[in-house]
Amino acid sequence: MVGDQPAAIQPRYTQPPARVVSDDEIEAIHVASLEVLKRTGIDILHADARERLAAAGARVDGDRVRFDPEMVMEHLATIPSSFTLHGTAPHRDLVIGDGHIVFSSVASAPNYVTLDGARRAGDRDGYRDFLRLGQMLNAVHMFNGFPVEPVDLHPSIRHLETAWDAYTLSDKPFHIYSLGRDRNLDGLEMARIARGVDHDTFEAEPSLCSIINASSPLRYDDPMLEGIIRMSERNQVIIITPFTLAGAMAPITLAGALVQQNAEALAGLVLTQVVRPGSPAVYGGFTSNVDMRSGSPAFGTPEYAKAAIAGGQLARRYDIPYRSSNVSTSNVVDAQAGYESAWALWGAITGGANMVMHAAGWMEGGLHASYEKMVIDADLLNMVSKFLEPLVVDESTLAVDAIDRVGPAGHFFGDEHTQSRYTSEFLSPMVSDWRNWESWQLAGSPDARTRANALARELIAAHAEPGLDDAIRAELREFVDRRVAEGGVATDF
Amino acid sequence: MVGDQPAAIQPRYTQPPARVVSDDEIEAIHVASLEVLKRTGIDILHADARERLAAAGARVDGDRVRFDPEMVMEHLATIPSSFTLHGTAPHRDLVIGDGHIVFSSVASAPNYVTLDGARRAGDRDGYRDFLRLGQMLNAVHMFNGFPVEPVDLHPSIRHLETAWDAYTLSDKPFHIYSLGRDRNLDGLEMARIARGVDHDTFEAEPSLCSIINASSPLRYDDPMLEGIIRMSERNQVIIITPFTLAGAMAPITLAGALVQQNAEALAGLVLTQVVRPGSPAVYGGFTSNVDMRSGSPAFGTPEYAKAAIAGGQLARRYDIPYRSSNVSTSNVVDAQAGYESAWALWGAITGGANMVMHAAGWMEGGLHASYEKMVIDADLLNMVSKFLEPLVVDESTLAVDAIDRVGPAGHFFGDEHTQSRYTSEFLSPMVSDWRNWESWQLAGSPDARTRANALARELIAAHAEPGLDDAIRAELREFVDRRVAEGGVATDF
Repeated sequence: MVGDQPAAIQPRYTQPPARVVSDDEIEAIHVASLEVLKRTGIDILHADARERLAAAGARVDGDRVRFDPEMVMEHLATIPSSFTLHGTAPHRDLVIGDGHIVFSSVASAPNYVTLDGARRAGDRDGYRDFLRLGQMLNAVHMFNGFPVEPVDLHPSIRHLETAWDAYTLSDKPFHIYSLGRDRNLDGLEMARIARGVDHDTFEAEPSLCSIINASSPLRYDDPMLEGIIRMSERNQVIIITPFTLAGAMAPITLAGALVQQNAEALAGLVLTQVVRPGSPAVYGGFTSNVDMRSGSPAFGTPEYAKAAIAGGQLARRYDIPYRSSNVSTSNVVDAQAGYESAWALWGAITGGANMVMHAAGWMEGGLHASYEKMVIDADLLNMVSKFLEPLVVDESTLAVDAIDRVGPAGHFFGDEHTQSRYTSEFLSPMVSDWRNWESWQLAGSPDARTRANALARELIAAHAEPGLDDAIRAELREFVDRRVAEGGVATDF
Repeated sequence: MVGDQPAAIQPRYTQPPARVVSDDEIEAIHVASLEVLKRTGIDILHADARERLAAAGARVDGDRVRFDPEMVMEHLATIPSSFTLHGTAPHRDLVIGDGHIVFSSVASAPNYVTLDGARRAGDRDGYRDFLRLGQMLNAVHMFNGFPVEPVDLHPSIRHLETAWDAYTLSDKPFHIYSLGRDRNLDGLEMARIARGVDHDTFEAEPSLCSIINASSPLRYDDPMLEGIIRMSERNQVIIITPFTLAGAMAPITLAGALVQQNAEALAGLVLTQVVRPGSPAVYGGFTSNVDMRSGSPAFGTPEYAKAAIAGGQLARRYDIPYRSSNVSTSNVVDAQAGYESAWALWGAITGGANMVMHAAGWMEGGLHASYEKMVIDADLLNMVSKFLEPLVVDESTLAVDAIDRVGPAGHFFGDEHTQSRYTSEFLSPMVSDWRNWESWQLAGSPDARTRANALARELIAAHAEPGLDDAIRAELREFVDRRVAEGGVATDF
């Protein structure tokens, strides 16, 4: 099974991204967001962050921080347009930006659906199985958070044991949640130990991500700001992602929601550069719409895809890597889950996203993770990679001689032009079932979810630890044991 | 329910289409296809067609017809870049080309799945219910063939009774199969009667389509060629569509399959213009790949989407309206059906298709039609229409004042900027279920297929005949009765 997957590669864009608005309109959104930053400003609920921003030229009035356009643009200019994110194994290194794409696992779901079909609150068993499955799927490049939150681990030590699990069960790059200074410091140290490098090398080689969400509208909370400071000062990766639901926490018009998304994103990005010029940061867009009948959020909608493409246009305006997501509102792995995810993915990919988060396994608007969906999404991600392979046009592929050889009413199966290519020319999907009706009936008429369930079981069972170096493993365990013995972190935040 | 659908509009492109190859590479494919037409040629299995082509400058050798590039380009130049296709009700008129999109129903499935879940051979009851459902769905603009083939109607009179059903149950434009001269002539006359116009008006106003498939590789069969002659001489719409499965009836390389698709398409298109310069014709692309393990065709694949986009580039090279399709290989309305259709649709739409065939209801690689899929696809088509609505960027939509009014930690629900727009800003889908887990569980955990089944039943039950003028109805019935009494058409072809 595992050998049947396409190899673990990072797909690259070979064609220019799509646009949903003109360059002039992007400029109008940009200018409007600068106006918001100057006139309305952002609440920055962290004294040190306010002081740093003030020292860099921002105007501070209580919690409110206002930014002049020149100051914003000056700091955006130091964000690298691309960088390498390091895994604990060198072959897991990823390029962020420069036309490359990274797919990261579903993250932060509070619940999951077991392989027996029960929906339950996240636990460590589930968390570990998602790590195993994500490690086994070549299409999943990294973990940008816990696939599911293991609430059976006490919050004081959860960040320690989850990182232990991540570095022992997987060698793909990992993420820490910015939930207070001590968690950030522990996470940074564990990432350094897991990579087996000294502090200087760790700071020279970004090896850890943290997602920073604005509390839309127009506010950053203390732990998020602390996370920016702790991560950026060590030259680690900050992914700024306002979560702007048009009609709820943002204006109902997509243009307005994008103005707000952009204002919030720029404020967070500026702070990364105030903390450490040149530190790696990613522009995240997560603008979707709500169901105006119920107020429920909706994902994988036409509005979502349009905002995803516009978000890419904005990120490129600043030459910063762009993060989007693969999302679905569906409660069950049905046709809706399939088409919403395909819509979100096409929005991300035609929009030129460099990092697709929640790329495999996200269901129910993020409220549960699904093993079956993770496998199905891996098929979708492999489809994206195949789609992005250049369509080669040369004398051999144009096949004028083969067409002449076969001629009217002939067949190409037997021709040498076909025979020399037939094993590699097309993607062989894992889940998609192309059997005819009769064969499929004989096999018990399994739908995509049923097939994905069987594959998920196989892949999890086939998982082997990637083999962290013994000394590193011991040092990492020792660190966790010591910090657990110390009581972990305070949980009164 | 019906009132909950978005209005019946034709979506339009506001942004340039995507490309998967460069303009130079499109030119290389074009040149290679001209080489195929000149060197290898096409088998044209119809004496009159060969004579007409010879008179226009083609070289005929037995059945084989070879075309010089100059002759091809001269005739392509007379194809209109856009035209109006007329329905029996004026508000059903459709623009083909000029940046507009038409969505047509699933067509030509030999089987269908009943609303009770049984897969069976097509019959008139099923055919009529698909017409009713397609008539009720605003997203379905026309019928490009029988949604399902009613094999319980004798082949000698099937074309007559099916057209009767189509013109009485729907006022959306219809299609005839080119299966011999007499069927074409009957179909043309019924279309004219149904429109209530004289022969001159009928010829001035294209009102009927016929799909013409090449018998790939490089052959057109007698009834298809007869169809081109009968339809084009009356200025009706010919949609030339080679069905080129890479690795089977076409080269395994997409470039090669596109060369063959293009050569076959150009040959058919040239004949339409030889028959009547300026007659309306559409460039159809239907290049997909086969599963190289089994030889089974596959649809909604990455290769399919790539070929769909390249096909649009080719059609625009000649300034001819472009037809693509919404396809899926799946046997059941599951996640695979959802993502394959979304992939095919995105390929069509980012590729700039002007006519999306099989846009609603196509399953199992075309081997069965599905009511549930038709309703789900209508949701997808409405998503496409919403996605293509311009993202308006102006002072009002940028919402800088609203953002300032609401401020940090506020909420936009109550703001006037939201209140004045909340009923119309976002698409309200028919099938997509955005309820939270608890509400959805209380409702019985219906998946998309279950919800679509209920909607299909409602819509079919709510169908009312659109009300053909009494005199037209009588004339149409009289025509059918007379032709049935005459024995219909010979069935010995």
